Amino acid sequence: MPETPALSATPRSTLTRKKHRAAHERSALYDVLDNALVCHLGLVLHGSPVVLPTGYGRDGDTLYFHGSTGAGNLREAAEGVDVCVTVTILDGIVYARSLNNHSMNYRCAVVHGRARPLAGAEKEHGLKVITDQLSPGSWNYAREASAKELASVTVLALDLAEASVKMRAEGPGEEPEDLGTTDVWAGVLPVHTGFGSPVTAEYVPRSTPVPEHVASRAGTKYS
Amino acid sequence: MPETPALSATPRSTLTRKKHRAAHERSALYDVLDNALVCHLGLVLHGSPVVLPTGYGRDGDTLYFHGSTGAGNLREAAEGVDVCVTVTILDGIVYARSLNNHSMNYRCAVVHGRARPLAGAEKEHGLKVITDQLSPGSWNYAREASAKELASVTVLALDLAEASVKMRAEGPGEEPEDLGTTDVWAGVLPVHTGFGSPVTAEYVPRSTPVPEHVASRAGTKYS
Repeated sequence: MPETPALSATPRSTLTRKKHRAAHERSALYDVLDNALVCHLGLVLHGSPVVLPTGYGRDGDTLYFHGSTGAGNLREAAEGVDVCVTVTILDGIVYARSLNNHSMNYRCAVVHGRARPLAGAEKEHGLKVITDQLSPGSWNYAREASAKELASVTVLALDLAEASVKMRAEGPGEEPEDLGTTDVWAGVLPVHTGFGSPVTAEYVPRSTPVPEHVASRAGTKYS
Repeated sequence: MPETPALSATPRSTLTRKKHRAAHERSALYDVLDNALVCHLGLVLHGSPVVLPTGYGRDGDTLYFHGSTGAGNLREAAEGVDVCVTVTILDGIVYARSLNNHSMNYRCAVVHGRARPLAGAEKEHGLKVITDQLSPGSWNYAREASAKELASVTVLALDLAEASVKMRAEGPGEEPEDLGTTDVWAGVLPVHTGFGSPVTAEYVPRSTPVPEHVASRAGTKYS
């Protein structure tokens, strides 16, 4: 397998501070993008920044996201304006001995670029990738989209060409003066995203089993 | 207690679609803002949209967020440019009988406006509000910030004057043709944010107890 190229270093994707928290391997980008359920899509709409959450998926070096053809922010994104897609995973609350050194452990990917609307087989592939991220197993289990349904959805692709990853995954940083004490606790409280027990829709007969692709997620930690 | 005013309805804060998912009560805005740990701050930097996660807190109708004085996006926000602060809570994955009706249950608050940098007592109050959201109990437990530490932090306030709330909290929506079948499961898989067990920093004596404000969060669901 060819080695994947390192992450780009354009002015927009270069961290200007806490540079030691930058990850430069493409695998770190994939790790963040593959372990979250929602991204935040930012763009400029009617002169103002707008940030909205949306589902997404990754395949190779392409990020896919989608929404109704009626959504104003997606319509604008489909025009090829600059967008910023950010995915954040919160991993822990960092309690230091000083308030100033309280922090968070997290993994965050920021992708800059211009998205392109998809059609035909590419659009269907994008929808599969998004489905596989949000609800793996559904693609082969649920009824496929009709032509009319497909037409009601905008699917966009964004190349992972200009991206940065920043993360913190460590215990508290302390000032020397705070290390001498013994009576103040410090540490990390882990944070995770988890799934509960499936709630069956009321029109589904009780005899219809919860399929394995849903049942296997129940009660597990996602990230 | 005076009734809180309803949410504003400027063009930026009025939903253009799925209007039935809009919440118009200010209490719905508070509910979202008070039950998350991270917001996404969007603004235009050097001509491009930038979206970055940051800690925040709410007190009354003011949202506070902070970061290093060296952070480019906070420096820009402090200049009084338009910002968009979005807080999203994912509550569930919605599995419908058709792929097209797969969805998510969520609560999302979007705040537009211009932030102002704080100083003096207001700045300290903002830091307390942010601390109380991220790590309640720490304000009275950990060492307070020195003047030098305070100077290294930018604290911004954003009025909750122009905001919208959108949420979905229901079972799958189905097409009539999909309601007739009996062999396909549909329902909601709840998603929550949870806390694990505290990990004590290595320089803290094992005899130092985990304080109640941390211990009481361990193993609980946050939202």
